[in-house]
Parts: sequence; structure tokens; C-alpha cells
Amino acid sequence: MAGASDTPLVLLHRPPSLDFMDEILSRNFRILNTDTSSEPLPIFLSRHASSARAFVVVGRFFVTAEILSYLPSLQLLVCGSVGFDHVDLAECKRRGVVVTNARNAFSDDVADCAVGLLISVLRRIPAGDRFIRSGDWEKYGEFRLGSKVSGKRVGILGFGSIGSFVAKRLEGFDCVISYNSRSEKPSVPYRYYSDILSLAANNDVLVLCCSLTEQTHHIVNREVMESLGKDGVIINVGRGKLIDEKEMVKCLVDGVIGGAGLDVFENEPAVPEELFGLENVVLSPHSGVATQGSLDNVAEITLANLKAFFSNRPLLSPVQLD
Amino acid sequence: MAGASDTPLVLLHRPPSLDFMDEILSRNFRILNTDTSSEPLPIFLSRHASSARAFVVVGRFFVTAEILSYLPSLQLLVCGSVGFDHVDLAECKRRGVVVTNARNAFSDDVADCAVGLLISVLRRIPAGDRFIRSGDWEKYGEFRLGSKVSGKRVGILGFGSIGSFVAKRLEGFDCVISYNSRSEKPSVPYRYYSDILSLAANNDVLVLCCSLTEQTHHIVNREVMESLGKDGVIINVGRGKLIDEKEMVKCLVDGVIGGAGLDVFENEPAVPEELFGLENVVLSPHSGVATQGSLDNVAEITLANLKAFFSNRPLLSPVQLD
Repeated sequence: MAGASDTPLVLLHRPPSLDFMDEILSRNFRILNTDTSSEPLPIFLSRHASSARAFVVVGRFFVTAEILSYLPSLQLLVCGSVGFDHVDLAECKRRGVVVTNARNAFSDDVADCAVGLLISVLRRIPAGDRFIRSGDWEKYGEFRLGSKVSGKRVGILGFGSIGSFVAKRLEGFDCVISYNSRSEKPSVPYRYYSDILSLAANNDVLVLCCSLTEQTHHIVNREVMESLGKDGVIINVGRGKLIDEKEMVKCLVDGVIGGAGLDVFENEPAVPEELFGLENVVLSPHSGVATQGSLDNVAEITLANLKAFFSNRPLLSPVQLD
Repeated sequence: MAGASDTPLVLLHRPPSLDFMDEILSRNFRILNTDTSSEPLPIFLSRHASSARAFVVVGRFFVTAEILSYLPSLQLLVCGSVGFDHVDLAECKRRGVVVTNARNAFSDDVADCAVGLLISVLRRIPAGDRFIRSGDWEKYGEFRLGSKVSGKRVGILGFGSIGSFVAKRLEGFDCVISYNSRSEKPSVPYRYYSDILSLAANNDVLVLCCSLTEQTHHIVNREVMESLGKDGVIINVGRGKLIDEKEMVKCLVDGVIGGAGLDVFENEPAVPEELFGLENVVLSPHSGVATQGSLDNVAEITLANLKAFFSNRPLLSPVQLD
């Protein structure tokens, strides 16, 4: 067994509920957990983490230039997420910090969530559940009709592993799939639209599975929603800022679009209160990845990246910094 | 255009919201709607419907021996449903009344609903929606983990068109499918269990898609639920009486099973109030078939059966009376 001095120090930030990761990681590393001290974070990091070469961030902790400035020895940032819009990638690059993400650890679960939200919105599942729990079914009888899922035209924005998993699932429902991504993928059998306006105009449902970048910020704007039309439904399992949320709320209230299933929001955990009273939306607390199966996968790829780094082997899921 | 006297009289019972059917049917028939009179039903039927040779019943109106006794000319009963446990089939047979059902008009929608409920229970979608709408996400942060859908072992009880459509959909989620039905189906590629106890013991989720008969009444009893186990989930899109509902409530409250997604109940629209406070159930107001697409299909097959009957051609979807 390696002595404490031989065991690399790894800084860890994680949500309180994910304490199972401490045990897994501490089999191979000395873990310094950011929440073990009552000191303000800058002081804590300066005092205890200045020698840390690796930092594991699970959840949406913002890794800013300031945070990085307290970690002068940092060489590796392991993100336990697929997206990394909470990380100042430019500053990481400048400092020579390599970043890894969770690759496709969540793809199954996020795709399941997307399809679950799609059916929930169209078939009004949470609305039906409320209808019964409030006693209204017994009191008033008939519940308002939902909309058919089978055969719907579904446009997928972003066709990485999550997008392709959504498509695979929806084929079983005889949905007609098309997609938009940075470039057409020759191996994908679905129709490609080179811009999101045509994708919206030619589909009944838009599923957002792309990453958030400068190019995709507010990519779903009022014009896109008008193209999607009054029966159209948006499912967002990507990032909140893919949609102009203020405009989306108006479009939902005014019937410019038909409905939405939202797992992500612009200012989580704040959700626009106007949505709370709407029957045509299903709201989900960023739980696309929230299963034990996903967490096990994250722990696994995190450990694998750390082991690779400390033994000078290639990382499993490096993020391109450019 | 045929004169009124040549146009066959068709008695119709339907929910108020389905008035679109009147117009479709009245293009070819004289429609006598049961809800057009304030007379008590027996008097109304005796006075106005004694010459009716065909009766269309959409929804769960109970066609009892008494009702049939007021319809001496009846030869055809067209049910706008797949199940017909609301019809006294023995009395129909005795009177020589032929019965038709909606065949697979709803199969797509019911299968979509089953999968929607399955994802909703495992991934806690309506619970998450409540969590946000109540303001708890912003107040308390983290939401409790759901359970993975992908890869789950799903046992389907009843492998007609709905069961096979559920299986087709769940293949896209890499679920492992098995089934039980009256007999093994050589053309079905999934594992067959000859009894429901083994089906329950070897699966994570049970999906009930069989019809209600004397043999299937309370087929899901306490013993079956104990076999399914504490993480097991029941999805019921068949009929409420397939499950011993009183025992199911106890099993859900006591954690004998993990959860349930229920579109049907023993005494609809009454739902056991103990379920209203449970987080591990999703309740749906018998809306498995409730889309305009399904209703259009019902109108179509109803019309086709009526036309076939009145022109002495073979019926499209006769029910075996034995």
C-alpha cells in the first residue's frame, strides 16, 4: 500500500448527496473535499489545495479564472458532466490545464429523459396525475385529450451520442426523425437540415441535445418558435441558455408554440414562475442524468481519467480546448 | 341521397366530448343519440329504439341484460373500445347479437401511454414537475434520484397488439423483454414465462396489457407483487380489475413493490385516496386512448363495421362470443 506522501492529492467538489464518490476515489487518491472546511473558498483553496495537480468537479460548480488562480499546480480538471459551460476553458488553456468530461456516461439516461418528457407533454401525463390527485377526475369526469406520439415528426438539434440515442428510441414509436448539427453526418440515415429554422418548420417536436457554445446560445429564439408553430413542442435536455427563455415563456402563454418539456433552465434552480400555472409544460429539475446508474458511470470515468493522468497514460475523455 | 325511411337507424351512446362522431355517422345512418332526451333510459329506449338493429357504444357504458331487453330488434353491438368487459357477452350471444370491438385502433396510443408511464415512474417525472411548481427546487436544491430505464428487464402480461407495440418501443431503450400470455407465440422472439409468478420474479417492471376475463381478474395479487419485489414497478394500461387494488395500495405504502404507473383502476373514476400522497406512483385518468388520432380510428372502424353489417358484408372486427 502506498504511503500518504506517495498518494496524489485530488481536490474534489461534489453535491452533498454524492458522497459515495469519496470512498471510490480515496482508494487511490488523497481526497481534499471543498466542503470539509468552514473557511471561505479562496482561503481554503490557497491554504490546502495549492499543491493539487487534479481537480474533480461534479455538478455545476463554476470554475472561473479566479478559482483557477488559487490552484497554481493544477494540470487536470475532471468534469463529471458532459457539458462544460461552467468552466472557463480559455483560462484553462492559457494555464495549460487539461480538461476531461464525462463523455457518454449519461447519454442513455438523458435520452430516456428526453423521450419521457416528450411523451409526458404530448400525452399530458403530469397534468393527468394532478387531475386525479386533486380529486377532479371523480368530480368532473373527462380529462382533456392528449396528442398522439406515434408517427410524430421529431427534429433533433445536436446529433452526438444523446441525439442518436433519442432517435433510436423514437424509431420504436414510428416517429419520423430529422436532425441538425454542425455538419451533415454521412453515416446517419435521417434527413439533415442545415439550419434550425427549416428543422423547426418541418417538424412537430424539436429535441435540443446540443452543447451550449457561443454559436448555440439562444439558438431557439422567437423566429424558431414561430416556425415550429402552434402545435409544436420543444424538449430541452441540453442547457437552459439554448433557448431564449423569456421569449419561450411568452410563446407558451400566447400559444405561439404548443408545449414544452424542460429539464434545464437559464438560471437554475430558478424557473420562471409564469410556467408554474401552465398545463402545456412539463418541468424537470435538471434530472436528465439523475440515476444511480449514471452516477456509477461518472465515478468510473472520473477514476479512469485520474489514474491515466497520474500514470502518464492517455486520458479517456479529453475536451478539445480551442 | 337516400330517403329517411331507407336510412338505417343506429342507436348511439357516447361521451359528450365525442360529438364529432355524430356528424361522421349521420352521413350514412339515422343516429339516435341516447343523451338527446330527458326521459329515463328504459323509457327512452322502449319508445324510440325498439326498431334499432345496431347500437354503437363508445366509452364505458354498461350494456347489461336489462338494457338489451329494451332493444328487441338489436342484431349488432359496435363497441368503440378494445376491451368489452362492460358488455354482457353471454346475453348478447343468447339474443344472437353480434359484437364488434375497436380492434387495434388504439394500440399505438396505449403502448405510447404504457412507455410514458414507465419512464414517468422510474425517472419520477410528475414528482419532479411538482417539485418545481411548488417552489421546492429553488428552496431545497437537489431532487431525489430516479431509476434507470435503459436496460431494465420488462415483463409484458398479454402479448396482443398492445403488448407487442410496447415491446417494440422498449427495444429502443435496450430493455430486456419477456412475456406471458395464454400460450407461447412461436413468432415472438422474447422469452416466454408460462405463469405470472415467474414473469414477476424475473423482471424489474411488469406491464399489464391483457384483457380482463374471469381468468385474469385480480391476476396481480399480493403473491405476484411479493415476487416482483421492493424495487419492482407495475404499469397497468389494461383494466383496473387485473390488480387486487386494495393489496396493491398496501404493497405501495409498505414498500413491498417500488412503484406503479396506473392508467386504470377498479372503480373508475374513483381512485384510492391513499395513492394521492404517494411519490412512487403516477396516476392517469384512463387516457391511454385519449388522443384525437385514436378517436379518428374509432370513428373509422365503427363506420366500417356498420356499413359492412347493413350491406351484408363480413364485419371487420367481430368479437368471439364463447
